[in-house]
Amino acid sequence: MPQLTFWYEFASTYSYLSVMRIEKTAAAVSVDVVWRPFLLGPIFKSQGWTTSPFNVYPAKGRYMVRDITRIATQRGLTFRMPETFPANGLKAARLATLGVEDGWGPAFTQAVFEAQFVQGLDISSNDVLLAILADLDLDAADVVARANAPENKERLREATAKAQEIGIFGAPSFTTADGELYWGDDRLDAALAHAADTAARAAG
Amino acid sequence: MPQLTFWYEFASTYSYLSVMRIEKTAAAVSVDVVWRPFLLGPIFKSQGWTTSPFNVYPAKGRYMVRDITRIATQRGLTFRMPETFPANGLKAARLATLGVEDGWGPAFTQAVFEAQFVQGLDISSNDVLLAILADLDLDAADVVARANAPENKERLREATAKAQEIGIFGAPSFTTADGELYWGDDRLDAALAHAADTAARAAG
Repeated sequence: MPQLTFWYEFASTYSYLSVMRIEKTAAAVSVDVVWRPFLLGPIFKSQGWTTSPFNVYPAKGRYMVRDITRIATQRGLTFRMPETFPANGLKAARLATLGVEDGWGPAFTQAVFEAQFVQGLDISSNDVLLAILADLDLDAADVVARANAPENKERLREATAKAQEIGIFGAPSFTTADGELYWGDDRLDAALAHAADTAARAAG
Repeated sequence: MPQLTFWYEFASTYSYLSVMRIEKTAAAVSVDVVWRPFLLGPIFKSQGWTTSPFNVYPAKGRYMVRDITRIATQRGLTFRMPETFPANGLKAARLATLGVEDGWGPAFTQAVFEAQFVQGLDISSNDVLLAILADLDLDAADVVARANAPENKERLREATAKAQEIGIFGAPSFTTADGELYWGDDRLDAALAHAADTAARAAG
């Protein structure tokens, strides 16, 4: 089955749109999704930003809220900006990195994005994250310990370094086996079509 | 007939994609297009940029070329980056501002974008602009004189000031009669649908 790698950052508003639809959208065209949490902070820093571009450029930030609200409404989703934006997504990203290894990564990711952009919670809060782990019937003490283990932290660092190396500068981004890069929820369908098409050519 | 205002900047690569399709796409849903050339330079300057964001952020610039090339290919268009990027589009924008008043604005605009992104020419060149005016059977001396008249220069300044006032920060952008703003060629269809829908509600 063809694959699409889904690069997302927990503080990213447009990542929310993709997180909420990628499984269904990919399944409809028989593409497997590889969930790949990473951190945009180090990449933004290398571009000279110390916060979200939506804070650096207020007109862009105001537009983003209108744009996402329109799209969310069309898709039957709720969207609100959290009180703290951008959230520090480091803990969530470490947990998701472990979750992808364990198999609960997508469900955890969706729950964290809903906590942030539906409920408006601060996802850097331990209470918020522990409640999500409990909802998923996970052993929180064990999971948190393994998420903070050096090898798991290193996995996330590697994902972030890899993202920067292959030219990723924002989230969500999507990459295909043949090296194509797509940026933005509005490119998800094109990315999936390319992944499916490339696999069909290779097979045929 | 419902209207959509189309804000474009001559140095903008994504504006090229919309310029080449907006007439047909809008006609298909019975929406009138109001062509509104403006200058992004002053707006970028107020954000601290002295050149295109695709030069400020090289990873974004490299991605933009891949992204537009893929989309252009799907639409049967040629796309190449001009030798000079971003071009100084001031003369072209003044001419287009006059052309919109006179009725030859859309044809002139399309020809300038093709000169730049198909042929790779520098559209700040008088020779390039004069050749386009000649192709359109316009009296170049008369047109250039009227384009440089104070009232025409003022029209362009007003369009740019208005763009900034209503929150435009990039091109292409689209605005509807009820004040919605859409940014990017990938939002053109949504903008047209909104314009058509709002008009239908008002009528019904």
